[in-house]
Amino acid sequence: MGINLNNFLSSQNKDSKMGDLQDLDHIDGVAISTISAELYNNTRDDLVMYYFRDGANHASVYTKSKIVSENIKWNLKQKTNKVYSLIVNTRNANAFTGLKGYQALQKIAEIVSTKLTEKQKDDDNNPDKINSKHILFGCTGTIGEPYPYDKIKDKITELIQNIKYTQNKYIWIKSALGIMTTDTKPKLAMEESKIGNTKVKIYGVAKGSGMIQPNMATTLGYIFTDANLSNNLLKKLLQKNIATTFNAISCDGDTSTNDMVTIFSTGKAGNQEIKNISDSKIKDFDDSLHTVMLSLSKRVVADGEGASKFITIKVQNCKTEEDAKKIGFSIANSPLVKTAIAGEDPNWGRIMMAIGKAGVELNLNKLSLKIGDFKIIANGKIFEKYEEDIVKDYMSNNSIEIVVDIFTGKKNFTTYTMDLTKKYIEINADYRS
Amino acid sequence: MGINLNNFLSSQNKDSKMGDLQDLDHIDGVAISTISAELYNNTRDDLVMYYFRDGANHASVYTKSKIVSENIKWNLKQKTNKVYSLIVNTRNANAFTGLKGYQALQKIAEIVSTKLTEKQKDDDNNPDKINSKHILFGCTGTIGEPYPYDKIKDKITELIQNIKYTQNKYIWIKSALGIMTTDTKPKLAMEESKIGNTKVKIYGVAKGSGMIQPNMATTLGYIFTDANLSNNLLKKLLQKNIATTFNAISCDGDTSTNDMVTIFSTGKAGNQEIKNISDSKIKDFDDSLHTVMLSLSKRVVADGEGASKFITIKVQNCKTEEDAKKIGFSIANSPLVKTAIAGEDPNWGRIMMAIGKAGVELNLNKLSLKIGDFKIIANGKIFEKYEEDIVKDYMSNNSIEIVVDIFTGKKNFTTYTMDLTKKYIEINADYRS
Repeated sequence: MGINLNNFLSSQNKDSKMGDLQDLDHIDGVAISTISAELYNNTRDDLVMYYFRDGANHASVYTKSKIVSENIKWNLKQKTNKVYSLIVNTRNANAFTGLKGYQALQKIAEIVSTKLTEKQKDDDNNPDKINSKHILFGCTGTIGEPYPYDKIKDKITELIQNIKYTQNKYIWIKSALGIMTTDTKPKLAMEESKIGNTKVKIYGVAKGSGMIQPNMATTLGYIFTDANLSNNLLKKLLQKNIATTFNAISCDGDTSTNDMVTIFSTGKAGNQEIKNISDSKIKDFDDSLHTVMLSLSKRVVADGEGASKFITIKVQNCKTEEDAKKIGFSIANSPLVKTAIAGEDPNWGRIMMAIGKAGVELNLNKLSLKIGDFKIIANGKIFEKYEEDIVKDYMSNNSIEIVVDIFTGKKNFTTYTMDLTKKYIEINADYRS
Repeated sequence: MGINLNNFLSSQNKDSKMGDLQDLDHIDGVAISTISAELYNNTRDDLVMYYFRDGANHASVYTKSKIVSENIKWNLKQKTNKVYSLIVNTRNANAFTGLKGYQALQKIAEIVSTKLTEKQKDDDNNPDKINSKHILFGCTGTIGEPYPYDKIKDKITELIQNIKYTQNKYIWIKSALGIMTTDTKPKLAMEESKIGNTKVKIYGVAKGSGMIQPNMATTLGYIFTDANLSNNLLKKLLQKNIATTFNAISCDGDTSTNDMVTIFSTGKAGNQEIKNISDSKIKDFDDSLHTVMLSLSKRVVADGEGASKFITIKVQNCKTEEDAKKIGFSIANSPLVKTAIAGEDPNWGRIMMAIGKAGVELNLNKLSLKIGDFKIIANGKIFEKYEEDIVKDYMSNNSIEIVVDIFTGKKNFTTYTMDLTKKYIEINADYRS
């Protein structure tokens, strides 16, 4: 990818809000392998394996699209307590590839599980029996092209030989690079946390760029922890935290057939078991997980296709959170708002247009709007001290905040998006060429 | 506007589907005046008056936005059987201008109605008494800038002096030019029809370009007829025909605060009164009105901001028309579909993505997709004879048709949109500069 990992790390660390990636190291029970299967017809890594030697508990949230890719169908069908590997390929979504695409995954899962079982025998005396059902897949790329079964199958032996039991920051970054499509930067986040008195780690990688919209709005996000947590609790933690992170972002209003966020826990930290999400001992972990997921989500938006500006939209004091979300996404998905921001034009009339079209009841006599710290609308009228020139200066920032106060209740929602630039058109008009 | 009217007419006439505008002439009871109030700080016409000497019956459909412009508020408040004038200004939307914007219209309506009453006295012996409530307004342009009251007020005398009682095609085109904002072409349509044995005319003008999306999806559309029709029947005819015309188009998914479609009937054709929309004698008129409204809607889309291609999306055999509409607009509003079409890339996977995210139940075993006459998906699978190269050739056309068959019922809906190009970003990032 031509990216200098040390430069990347030091540039990321300037952004203190996004965590210090210099500290990325090892999560016990996770192993990583990345390789080029030449899916892009070049040597970039495009096939990534996460291997859990002793299995991992897991929970996933998938796209809400009515048309889902073959790997999502596969993942949904495997009902196992533990998984042993997640394999992610880029360049091909394995969507609308029919039975052939599904069967390709089945064959790959069989080969991988056989080889991983052999590897376990080589590695120690007490191997687990790994079946095809223990393998999950993430796929991302073009929809409707035949799945590159042969290319991937031919690389399985090398992929497994390449497994690193001990990670460092470079391997984590390589894996984040390996799952990218049109992303320009790898996306990683990490937090250290505790459950009871036991220290645990939470690391995450993600890819984004296009087709990023609510109703589970990723793209791909994978979170790894050494905490000891049941599948049931992982599911609850994931669902709770996804609402305000991956489901609060939008790049272009499109939703993928392949969206997938999964959390894996290896249990190696050995913390005491927690039964209930309301147990105060899980609070720290819950908060840290939110931080990791929000950081990944923001990174996805900040690197949205063609993005030049990061936009935070806070919608406050609505009757319901759903109302606040509707207004937030109406603003976030408005091409007219997004192009105005790209043009550094404080054209707040378009924000008003987007609020109006959301179809939510408003308190027009109290409605207020701020861009950054600058009041524009107060009590439903243009603020008397509003000076466009000052806000115009503010628009030259890389990060723009819009705050809307609806005054019909007490519920808030924050949405994250980016601007709409010519570059977005370039990327998407020429994607396959 | 630097447009050569004769060249414009002959170029329009090549497009036979859109009616022969060479025939545009006089509609009895309608008079037109156009002028420059220098709202753009240049000499282009930006203020247009339609004057109905003996009043006109009328019906309107307005934006469904929760935030509406002051002129829409004004229009909704005037409950009169007949109106005497419609005044349209561009450059300023009179939206979020508060009481001041509303009062400006009130004052203008008072001045205009006084002057029109005087004019009636000058013109004939039996003048109608015209009040401010008989005046409707159309406004379009930037939201939230002060309404240019003085500039418009100062031009009223000249605007009224300039009224032409007898129209020809040039005056119609000038009025269509006068209501344009970022449109690149004036939009007109005409049909001749009959009610019983009486010949009647239906002419229409429209403006579009940005913020064009369902739920009454115009921009501005004004239809004029010499038919004798009650307000009640006009309302029914307008509501019936808007669903498949102005409400079936989308340029960018945004909805304006100012959307307005109005039909005016002068009654001068003297046809017999029709009481009921189900009366067979109104059938011809109903069909012709649909033709005019569809033609205007298509012209709005074809001239959408930055459009290089016109896209027709036919969604067929759904359980409900609402389902078909949801899928149609999901495709029409997908930036990824629209950019692929701009890039002449038959990336049908993105169409599948847009169908999937619409949230409508699908019959995945029967689902079919055609682009132009080319089958791509049949019975839920890639059509065996699908050849991408042939479809790639088809994508170089200016007009692209997408046909989706859902196979869950018998209801259809056709949506019209255009592609998303770099030019759209240029226009909208720099709109106010």
